[in-house]
Amino acid sequence: MAGEDRKLANGASFIDFQTEPARYRHWKIDVDGDVATLTMDVDENGGLFEGYQLKLNSYDLGVDIELADAVQRLRFEHPAVKVVVLRSGKNRVFCAGANIRMLAGATHAHKVNFCKFTNETRNGIEDSSENSGQRFICVINGTAAGGGYELALAADHIVLADDGSAAVALPEVPLLAVLPGTGGLTRVVDKRKVRRDHADFFCTIEEGIKGKRAVQWRLVDEIAPNSKLDARVTERAKEFADSSPRKGEGGGIALTPLTRAIDDNGLRYEFVGVDINRAARTATITIKAPEAAPPADVAAMTRQGAAFWPLQVARELDDAILHLRINELGIAMLVFKSHGDRAQVLAYDGFLEAHKDHWLVNEIRHYWKRVLKRVDVTSRTLVALVEPGSCFVGTLAELVFAADRSYMLIGEKQGDNRPPAELVLTQTNFGAYPMSHGLTRLGARFQADPSDVERAQAKIGQPLDAEAAEQLGLITFALDDIDWDDEVRVFLEERASFSPDSLTGLEANLRFVGPETMESKIFARLTAWQNWIFQRPNAVGEQGALRRYGTGERPIYDMTRV
Amino acid sequence: MAGEDRKLANGASFIDFQTEPARYRHWKIDVDGDVATLTMDVDENGGLFEGYQLKLNSYDLGVDIELADAVQRLRFEHPAVKVVVLRSGKNRVFCAGANIRMLAGATHAHKVNFCKFTNETRNGIEDSSENSGQRFICVINGTAAGGGYELALAADHIVLADDGSAAVALPEVPLLAVLPGTGGLTRVVDKRKVRRDHADFFCTIEEGIKGKRAVQWRLVDEIAPNSKLDARVTERAKEFADSSPRKGEGGGIALTPLTRAIDDNGLRYEFVGVDINRAARTATITIKAPEAAPPADVAAMTRQGAAFWPLQVARELDDAILHLRINELGIAMLVFKSHGDRAQVLAYDGFLEAHKDHWLVNEIRHYWKRVLKRVDVTSRTLVALVEPGSCFVGTLAELVFAADRSYMLIGEKQGDNRPPAELVLTQTNFGAYPMSHGLTRLGARFQADPSDVERAQAKIGQPLDAEAAEQLGLITFALDDIDWDDEVRVFLEERASFSPDSLTGLEANLRFVGPETMESKIFARLTAWQNWIFQRPNAVGEQGALRRYGTGERPIYDMTRV
Repeated sequence: MAGEDRKLANGASFIDFQTEPARYRHWKIDVDGDVATLTMDVDENGGLFEGYQLKLNSYDLGVDIELADAVQRLRFEHPAVKVVVLRSGKNRVFCAGANIRMLAGATHAHKVNFCKFTNETRNGIEDSSENSGQRFICVINGTAAGGGYELALAADHIVLADDGSAAVALPEVPLLAVLPGTGGLTRVVDKRKVRRDHADFFCTIEEGIKGKRAVQWRLVDEIAPNSKLDARVTERAKEFADSSPRKGEGGGIALTPLTRAIDDNGLRYEFVGVDINRAARTATITIKAPEAAPPADVAAMTRQGAAFWPLQVARELDDAILHLRINELGIAMLVFKSHGDRAQVLAYDGFLEAHKDHWLVNEIRHYWKRVLKRVDVTSRTLVALVEPGSCFVGTLAELVFAADRSYMLIGEKQGDNRPPAELVLTQTNFGAYPMSHGLTRLGARFQADPSDVERAQAKIGQPLDAEAAEQLGLITFALDDIDWDDEVRVFLEERASFSPDSLTGLEANLRFVGPETMESKIFARLTAWQNWIFQRPNAVGEQGALRRYGTGERPIYDMTRV
Repeated sequence: MAGEDRKLANGASFIDFQTEPARYRHWKIDVDGDVATLTMDVDENGGLFEGYQLKLNSYDLGVDIELADAVQRLRFEHPAVKVVVLRSGKNRVFCAGANIRMLAGATHAHKVNFCKFTNETRNGIEDSSENSGQRFICVINGTAAGGGYELALAADHIVLADDGSAAVALPEVPLLAVLPGTGGLTRVVDKRKVRRDHADFFCTIEEGIKGKRAVQWRLVDEIAPNSKLDARVTERAKEFADSSPRKGEGGGIALTPLTRAIDDNGLRYEFVGVDINRAARTATITIKAPEAAPPADVAAMTRQGAAFWPLQVARELDDAILHLRINELGIAMLVFKSHGDRAQVLAYDGFLEAHKDHWLVNEIRHYWKRVLKRVDVTSRTLVALVEPGSCFVGTLAELVFAADRSYMLIGEKQGDNRPPAELVLTQTNFGAYPMSHGLTRLGARFQADPSDVERAQAKIGQPLDAEAAEQLGLITFALDDIDWDDEVRVFLEERASFSPDSLTGLEANLRFVGPETMESKIFARLTAWQNWIFQRPNAVGEQGALRRYGTGERPIYDMTRV
C-alpha cells in the first residue's frame, strides 16, 4: 500500500491534535459581537506530511485539526457568539476538498482515521448549532468541491454566489472513483433531503451545480450576486442571531494548553494517564478522580475555567483517544481504569446536574457526550476493568457502558487495601450522553427489556458492588480475586491474537444496536462503503483514479460490478 | 484474487436459480397437515463448484437456492401450512455454516453475491412468518455454527437440544477473521436483543454456547433434552399453528417451471426479455403487459395459477435479476423498459387491490415486494426509460421509482406510432411495496416534503404525460424526441465509464434515505463491513485465516488496527 513511508512535515514524530489560534496556519477566527467569522485560507505549504501542497484550499488532517479546535473554542471561549460565518479566504475558490495527493499517498489506516476525524468535526459543527445555539452560515464564493461542499453541508444555511461560476460539486465518483464519504452522500439526501435521483445526477458530474438549480434541488439555501453577497450574509447572520437560543451571557473561559508528557510508554496528563504495553497490544487509560470538592457555585466554576475537573478530564481523555487512534495503530485494546474518591466524582456529577442550564455546564456536558461518542466509534476493543479503589460512577460509568466487555472485581484484592469496587449510577447515565444513534448506552444495553433501565434508574445514588452490578446487567462479568488475574489476562491475550479487521467490523456492528440516525448512518453505511472502496484497486491501485489523478493518464478500471 | 478459475460443477455454464423439489440434493420438504418439515441434509458431493465438499451440512449458494425455492413453494403451494420446522438430517450436527473452502476459493464478487442472496433468503423466511403466517421453528440437534446459527436466527423460535454437546456458535471472528455477515451480528443484537457485551463474548469464542446460558442470554428460546426434543417441537408447532393468522384455505398453486431461453445475447421469458449489450455494458430488461384481461374472480385466478400475469412476471423478473447479478458481472446498468397495454396492467393492479385479502393475492403482492427489494439492493445502476408504448403504471411504475435515474420521452417519437409515454399511479404505489427500510419508494423520494406524496396520490388513476410526471417529481428528466437519443446515450456511456466500485457505494447510499430497519441495517452496516473485510489480506490473503483454515497452519495477521 502506498504511503507507508510518508514523513510528517517539520520532523514531527507524531500527529498532534492540540493547537490554538495563535498557531493556526489555515484558519482565522474573527469575532464581531454575536457573529464570528471562520475563514479558511489554507497555507499550501502547511501540509501535515511531506510530499504534497495544499492547493486551492484543499485540506488534510492538519487543516481539520485547526477547524475542530476553532469550533470547540467558539463554544467555550465565546459564549456571546450566536452565529458563525464559514467562508474562504481565497478568491473565487471556496474549498477543493480533501487533498488528493495526500489521499493518494496515504495508508489505508490514515485515510480511514482522517475521514473519521473530519466526520466528527462536521458532526461537531451540527452539535454546536443544535445544542449551543451557534448557527453556521456557509458562504460559497467559488467552487466548493468534494470535501469542500461536505464542509458546507454541515452548516445550517448555505449561500452560494450567483456569478455564473461558483458551484457546489461532489465529483468524487467520476474523478476519483471514491465516495463523497465525509458525510456527503448522507447529508445530501438525509439532511438536505435532495431527491435521490437528483442526488445521483449531482454526484456523477464533475462540474457541479450552480445558480437557481442548486436552490431548486435543495443543494444550497439561496444564491446572491457577488455585489449583494456580503449584505445578504450580514442580513442572514442578524436573523439567525436574533432567533438563536444562545443567551450570550458572561465571558468565555480560555481553553488553556493541556499539560501533557508523551513518551514511548504512554501519555501523562494531570487526570488521565495512558500506559502503553506494545507486547500486549494494550493501552491502559486510567482516569483519576478529582481531589478537591466542586466549586461552590457557577461563578467559582467559571473562575476555574479549563481547570474545572469535568472539563479538564474530558479534554485530556479526548486528546488521549485521538492520539492513540492515529499514532498507535498497533494497539488492539483500550483498557479503561479509574481510581480515586468516588464521592468527589459524584459531587461533580451532582454539580453538573444542578447547574445544567448554565451555559458552561451545558457546554461541558455536550463535550462529554462528544468525547464518549468518539470512544464509541474508535476501532479498538474497549475494555473496562472495575477494580478496588476505582471511581466508575456517574459520567465515568459511561466508559464501562461504552466498553465491549467489562470486568468487575468482587470484594477486595489480596494485598490491596483499597475499598472494593462499586459502581454508582447518577441521573447523567439516563439521558445526558446519548450515543450517535440517539439511545443512551444503558438504553441500548437493555433494549431487550426497557424495564431493566427502570430497575437501574431506581438504584441511582446507591453503591453497587460487583454482584449487584452483575445482577443489574451493568457489567459483563463479576470475578473474584482468585479468578481475576487469569481471566483478564486470558481475555486480553486472546483478543490481541484476533484479526484486527474482523474485530473492527464486529465492534462497529454490536455497539450500535437498534435505530440509526443521520449521524450513525454516516459512520455505518457511508463510512463502511467508503472503507471498502478505499481498498479497491480502481481507487488506490497503481492505475487507480486516486493515484492517476492529475498525472494526465486516465485510470484503468476493473469493470466487474460487485 | 483466488477462485477466478473455479469451475462450476457438472459442466454448468452459469448459475441457475431455478429448481424444484424433485431436483433438490440438499433439502427435503415434508408436509403433514398444517406443519411442514424442512430438512437440511446436504449432499457433500453436491457443491455448486468443483473443488470442495460440503461436509457437516455446510452450504454454498446451490444449497441456498434450494432453500429459497422451498420457502417460496411453501407459501404458494401449501396454503394449509402454518408452521415450518427447520431441522437437520444429520446426526448431532445442525449446520456448519457457509463452506469455508468454497469461500476461500471464491472471487470477491462471488462472496458478495453469495452473501446477498443468502441474506435475502433469510429475510424471506422472516417475511413468510410476518406476512403469510408461516411460523418457523428451528430445531438444533447438534452444532449450529456460523451461517448455521444465522439460519436459525431467521426462525421465530429456536429449540436447542440440551445434551451437553449441541451448541450455537458464531466463530467467524476467532476462526476465520471475517464476520458473521449473513445477518448474524445484526440479528443477535437487533432481533434477539442479546446484550451487546454478551454478544461480544459469544462472537469471539470458537466453541459456542449451550444449555441454560444459551437461553439466559437469549440466543435460543428454549432447550430440551434429546428424549423430549421431538415432543417439545410437536407441542410448539401445535401452539404456533393454533395462533397463526394463516387461514389455511383452499389448495395451493403449483410454481411450474418458467419457460426461459438463455443465450449470449440475453434471456427470453414470456413477459420479460433481457437484451445484453456487452460493449455498452447494459442489460435492457423489457416487461410486457398482459394481453388478456384479468380473470373474472379469485377462483379463475387460482385456476390460472403460475400463469396469472402478476405472478408470472414477478417470477420471470426475479429470475432475470438474479441471473444478471451473478452471471453477468461485466454489466454496469440494468435498463428497464416496458411495452403493451397500460389498461391491462391497471386492470391487474385493480384486481390485486380488490382481492388483497385473498391468500394468493396476498402472496403475490408480498412476492412483488420482495422482487422490488431485490432490485433495490442490486449493485448495478438502475435506469428506467419511459418511452412511447410503455406501460409503467401501478406495480410496474415501482421500477421507475426504484431506478437511480429515470428518463421519460415527451410526446411521440419520430417514426414510431405508439402512443406517448404516460405513467399512471395506483393505490399500490402508496404502501403495498415498502423498501427494506420501511418507506415506500415514493415516500423515500419525497421525504423533503411529504405533501408531494399527497399531490401524487391525488393523481391516482390519471394518465400523466412526461411533463406532468416531471412536474410531480416522479421522473428525473422529461426529454423531447430531439434530445432523447443523445441524452440517453451520453448518460449510459458516461455511467459505463465510471469505476463500478464507487457506483456501488454511491447507489447503496442514495437509495436508502431516511430510517433504517434491521433488514436495511443488514445490507448496510453489516454487509458493507463484511465486504471490507472480505478484501483484507488477514482474511483472504495467502496467509489469511480463510485460506489457512483447516491446513494446520495458523494465519498470520497484519496487526494494524484500522
